[in-house]
Amino acid sequence: MKFYDCSTAPSPRRVRIFLAEKELNVPVVQVDLRNGEQLTETFRRINPQCEVPVLELDDGTIITETIAICRYLEDIHPLPPLLGVTAREKALIAMWDHKIEVEGFLAIAEAFRNRTAGFQERALAGPENYDQIPELVERGQRRAQRFFRTLDDQLAKNLYVAGDNFSMADISAFIAVDFSAWIKASPLIDHLHIKRWYETVAARPSLKA
Amino acid sequence: MKFYDCSTAPSPRRVRIFLAEKELNVPVVQVDLRNGEQLTETFRRINPQCEVPVLELDDGTIITETIAICRYLEDIHPLPPLLGVTAREKALIAMWDHKIEVEGFLAIAEAFRNRTAGFQERALAGPENYDQIPELVERGQRRAQRFFRTLDDQLAKNLYVAGDNFSMADISAFIAVDFSAWIKASPLIDHLHIKRWYETVAARPSLKA
Repeated sequence: MKFYDCSTAPSPRRVRIFLAEKELNVPVVQVDLRNGEQLTETFRRINPQCEVPVLELDDGTIITETIAICRYLEDIHPLPPLLGVTAREKALIAMWDHKIEVEGFLAIAEAFRNRTAGFQERALAGPENYDQIPELVERGQRRAQRFFRTLDDQLAKNLYVAGDNFSMADISAFIAVDFSAWIKASPLIDHLHIKRWYETVAARPSLKA
Repeated sequence: MKFYDCSTAPSPRRVRIFLAEKELNVPVVQVDLRNGEQLTETFRRINPQCEVPVLELDDGTIITETIAICRYLEDIHPLPPLLGVTAREKALIAMWDHKIEVEGFLAIAEAFRNRTAGFQERALAGPENYDQIPELVERGQRRAQRFFRTLDDQLAKNLYVAGDNFSMADISAFIAVDFSAWIKASPLIDHLHIKRWYETVAARPSLKA
């Protein structure tokens, strides 16, 4: 296997932590997103969508999308389980991971990429250029705030994001919290339940990955 | 179990077809999205995100997000498998389903909701109102076209979206194609591989669900 990573980007960090929790070592190829390496012809042949993370299997199969990569890793190395054990638990982890991605990550990215000078024609990740749209900065901020209220409500009632056990949903939510610092919208001051949970998760050695 | 559905909306249709493929009957509650039933206090108690599909388990557990609901159904009724059998196949189905959702559904919804009169303050689904942003109509169209080129390339090399077997990825992609008619961007004229595949999938009895 080969893991296409970028040490400064939020999504591949989810895979790095997932690998660390499983104590797996996979050869890493760094992709320099800041200098546009994802847009080169060489990388487009690996992932035409011009994004990391990517997992390349030994038979050449390319797996993109964080959740799909983690699902593959969970299947080949089931322990410790990070995607759930019972049907109910698996569903709740899948649900939260998806909510975190769509309601959290996409919102933060919207606020970030539409206002940051270095992303003037790169308001969306991917193979095509899109101009910034100033109204999306505020929209992304509002969506991110809404997401963190949802997350805080959930953590008021649960030890971890998807229930009693640490899971992929915690990895994703933790990185969404860190990513929110990029838009100066960290929930760690106003949301006490997120703060309590964040400190617990931050203490895990895997979070340094 | 109880399934909160809306017969006119694209996402719950994915669950209906999934249930039909498994020959499962689950009691259905229709939620009238056109008249804003998803925004009522009653429905917010079921799903604060104000969206369908929702699956309610007998113990009261609420599962939202199409992929999480289908994952639960696959776990409790594994046959026929719609989320894959081998680790590789499961990963590719998860990957394509996620791509279809983010690159396909979200793009089409962006073009549709930002231009349609009935959605003036409802440019995003969910609990909060967001004004339409005219620039997003063209952006959504461009993203949708890009997605259909990706899908056509994939179907040029594969019988079904994620490989040799019919799966959840076909259900999602089929409904993305149907949804694209709402923005007059159907790929069925220009994309011959999509057309060939669409006709095969359309012949399945489950597609009438």
